[in-house]
Amino acid sequence: MPGFDAATRELMRRLGADVVRTDVASLDAAAYDSSKIPFRPEAVVKPRREEQIGVVLALANRHRVPVTVRGRGTTLTGAAAPRRGGWVIDMLRLNRIRIDAEAGMAHVQAGAKIAPIQAAAEAAGWFYPPDPSSKAYCTIGGNVACNAGGMHGGKYGVTRDFIIALRGFLPTGEYVEWGTATKKFAAGFNLRDLWIGSEGMLGVVTGAVLKLIPRPAARWTLLTAFKDETAALAAARTLFRARVQPAICEFLDRDSVHCAESATGRPVFAGQKDRAVILLELAGTASEVREVKTAVLAWARRHAVAHRAARDRAEAEELWAVRRKCSGAMFELGDSKLNEDITIPMRSYAAFATFLAGLKRSSGLAIPTFGHLADGNLHVNIMYHRADRAESCAAEVAVDQLMRKVVALGGAISGEHGIGLAKTPFLRIQHSPAQVQAMQAVKKALDPKGILNPGKMFDIFHVWQHPRLAVKLPWDHK
Amino acid sequence: MPGFDAATRELMRRLGADVVRTDVASLDAAAYDSSKIPFRPEAVVKPRREEQIGVVLALANRHRVPVTVRGRGTTLTGAAAPRRGGWVIDMLRLNRIRIDAEAGMAHVQAGAKIAPIQAAAEAAGWFYPPDPSSKAYCTIGGNVACNAGGMHGGKYGVTRDFIIALRGFLPTGEYVEWGTATKKFAAGFNLRDLWIGSEGMLGVVTGAVLKLIPRPAARWTLLTAFKDETAALAAARTLFRARVQPAICEFLDRDSVHCAESATGRPVFAGQKDRAVILLELAGTASEVREVKTAVLAWARRHAVAHRAARDRAEAEELWAVRRKCSGAMFELGDSKLNEDITIPMRSYAAFATFLAGLKRSSGLAIPTFGHLADGNLHVNIMYHRADRAESCAAEVAVDQLMRKVVALGGAISGEHGIGLAKTPFLRIQHSPAQVQAMQAVKKALDPKGILNPGKMFDIFHVWQHPRLAVKLPWDHK
Repeated sequence: MPGFDAATRELMRRLGADVVRTDVASLDAAAYDSSKIPFRPEAVVKPRREEQIGVVLALANRHRVPVTVRGRGTTLTGAAAPRRGGWVIDMLRLNRIRIDAEAGMAHVQAGAKIAPIQAAAEAAGWFYPPDPSSKAYCTIGGNVACNAGGMHGGKYGVTRDFIIALRGFLPTGEYVEWGTATKKFAAGFNLRDLWIGSEGMLGVVTGAVLKLIPRPAARWTLLTAFKDETAALAAARTLFRARVQPAICEFLDRDSVHCAESATGRPVFAGQKDRAVILLELAGTASEVREVKTAVLAWARRHAVAHRAARDRAEAEELWAVRRKCSGAMFELGDSKLNEDITIPMRSYAAFATFLAGLKRSSGLAIPTFGHLADGNLHVNIMYHRADRAESCAAEVAVDQLMRKVVALGGAISGEHGIGLAKTPFLRIQHSPAQVQAMQAVKKALDPKGILNPGKMFDIFHVWQHPRLAVKLPWDHK
Repeated sequence: MPGFDAATRELMRRLGADVVRTDVASLDAAAYDSSKIPFRPEAVVKPRREEQIGVVLALANRHRVPVTVRGRGTTLTGAAAPRRGGWVIDMLRLNRIRIDAEAGMAHVQAGAKIAPIQAAAEAAGWFYPPDPSSKAYCTIGGNVACNAGGMHGGKYGVTRDFIIALRGFLPTGEYVEWGTATKKFAAGFNLRDLWIGSEGMLGVVTGAVLKLIPRPAARWTLLTAFKDETAALAAARTLFRARVQPAICEFLDRDSVHCAESATGRPVFAGQKDRAVILLELAGTASEVREVKTAVLAWARRHAVAHRAARDRAEAEELWAVRRKCSGAMFELGDSKLNEDITIPMRSYAAFATFLAGLKRSSGLAIPTFGHLADGNLHVNIMYHRADRAESCAAEVAVDQLMRKVVALGGAISGEHGIGLAKTPFLRIQHSPAQVQAMQAVKKALDPKGILNPGKMFDIFHVWQHPRLAVKLPWDHK
């Protein structure tokens, strides 16, 4: 888009060549996120100071240049890809982390990564629970943008539950602060939370104050096996009915178990071949964990066909490592994946298990499914071979059927990934025209020129029609 | 405003005389909230079905009639008073409560009151923590509107932390649902949270799904006394630094203690006259409370001049009853009160104590102060005699100095009451012009005709210039 040339030259004059990059390598690297569908930008801005973002946005408004913000680009939805070209702001240099050990808060810049934030908190005796599986790479800015979740959602909540204050820039380039470093704030409209989950379309977060909780003193991990998916999901419900709140409650269907076993060359649960499994972790004070453990063991004896507690942290880590391996091995079932992260209310678990078994049969595709039972957030992975026309069509039909069923069952089309590009065809299954219009009205109010992350959320884009780059990203599973 | 007559007649035709009231008693009762500054409406609408609210709003837009929504009217800010006349929607008939004991959620209508919601949750083994002191009267709709807090904020959070989904109507009258009954939701902009704390200006909440947590099995209450305010606030900080999270941590300065003693005729802490006090409650599993109690007793021995644990629940309730009495007795110090609910970061507690002592001296007014130390939310009560010109001026100056200091110390002008009318003169101390403009742009986008709760938040109103009705409301302290 040659019209942006003059704007980019002015940007370069204002911020200098250390901050503004136009070399091919920089543009290529910023062209895609983990969805691997590339869109070439005109320039990549790597701010060293937060106020430089105000300069970028003011210029972008003047010249109507699209601006897309990215952290490390781990999002699976395309939310960080510069669909309309223009400028990409790369936040990774803004990565300061400071723990307030008295207030139990972390003061962080948007480019700080989750793993070092968690490590800094834990070193001070505190704990930051949200833990997307890409936490060694992904940034808090990106986590705010998509309201990231992870395995701890059922007991502790998701990113929004740990945001005390945000600062940054409106799409028009004005600096703003939403909230103060206090746990209560009731002064004015809640634009802090409007920003959370807005996928970089309503403002640019440059810094955040995070809520921490005391670091759990004790953890205990239990592996349980069940006859099939229906039995596992029904068993989980009896646990929740007893008001047990495991810190983690991970479900793997039999297909996911096969994938994990094929990836590691080892059984997930020795002697329990072809079982659905639930991996549980309790966390809290030593006495609290002891107390709840008794209840959980009684539950396992009653409902599981087998169970095994980790003897120590090392064995627990091994179990979790197996869980993390299941996703990568799925590419033995197809070279392409429609990676969904729907949510289902507990009351609909049985209906969903029946539906999913039917979907596997009717589509003829492998659809390994795993996820977080305490919050109903299931990762449904529709595997297919891209070159196989019949499989591609079956996948496209299956994902549409999935989304319609999820909403009919009272669930959500995305629990923690967000819409980006990948879920734009389904937004209007979840939301009525009035709901979408209200969102668009808010977008228009805050970003009148539509420069911030345009082409996302509301404009329909079929990811399956676009070839993906054959790149291997550091966080890709083996 | 005779222009509304035709509109009101049409409303009456559509919804009938059972729902639409225009008798003087109904209009008078809906004219004011707990701020007691009255504005007469044209009609009061008492819907029996949620969809009737859509009818009201569509008509109001067509005829540009102001609409103000109220629950029980316990708000202290004037947020529920129909400042521009028009129609009041009274939500009290929409009061269904249903507990989902498996998912740990409450499905409620907006007019349901907090105390019965808590009771229903507890009967099912669950707990809904937000507990404004008016909880026997105030509704969940009102709590959502002002993002109400209460004594449990430090450990558990406030209303927004317990809202899973909302439904209701846009100002234009369209029905919308924000979120599903699942703990994760990342599909589209977060208008659910934008509604929370929007004080009935961005939409009408008709129903909510609330998050519950397991009911704490054990509680333990401790009363501690300190030489003065500075000593009490410093001691609280050492407790938080040790990562102790009491369920409640209530502070009363010496003036508040005097008020409580005068109201009850009994000492707050026998043998500890003229002391600042902190009243602590631990909650959790029996073993957890036992564990933390040891740490808290060691802390009390070291930092307090005296401490006394409640022997049982009855004695604990007595201590809490004394705490609740302090507010009403303040009217012995003046016939008028500027009732503030600021927040202060913990690191600023010492600076704030010094400031407050100075403010009491310089204003010559009694300013009894109490509040929630675990979240920095302090109730600063500036007492004066309305007929005394010097005292009135001193109060007006004092509240302005207070707000400027609070913001300078990194705090918020309101932690749990909201802006309404009462805090409109201070909104721009908290928020920059860009922040206020962004809020107003969002208001304009969702309520283009400006019919919903007009004249609040952004339009400056000096409550101290308006006489208050001499009415006694059921929740007024004796």
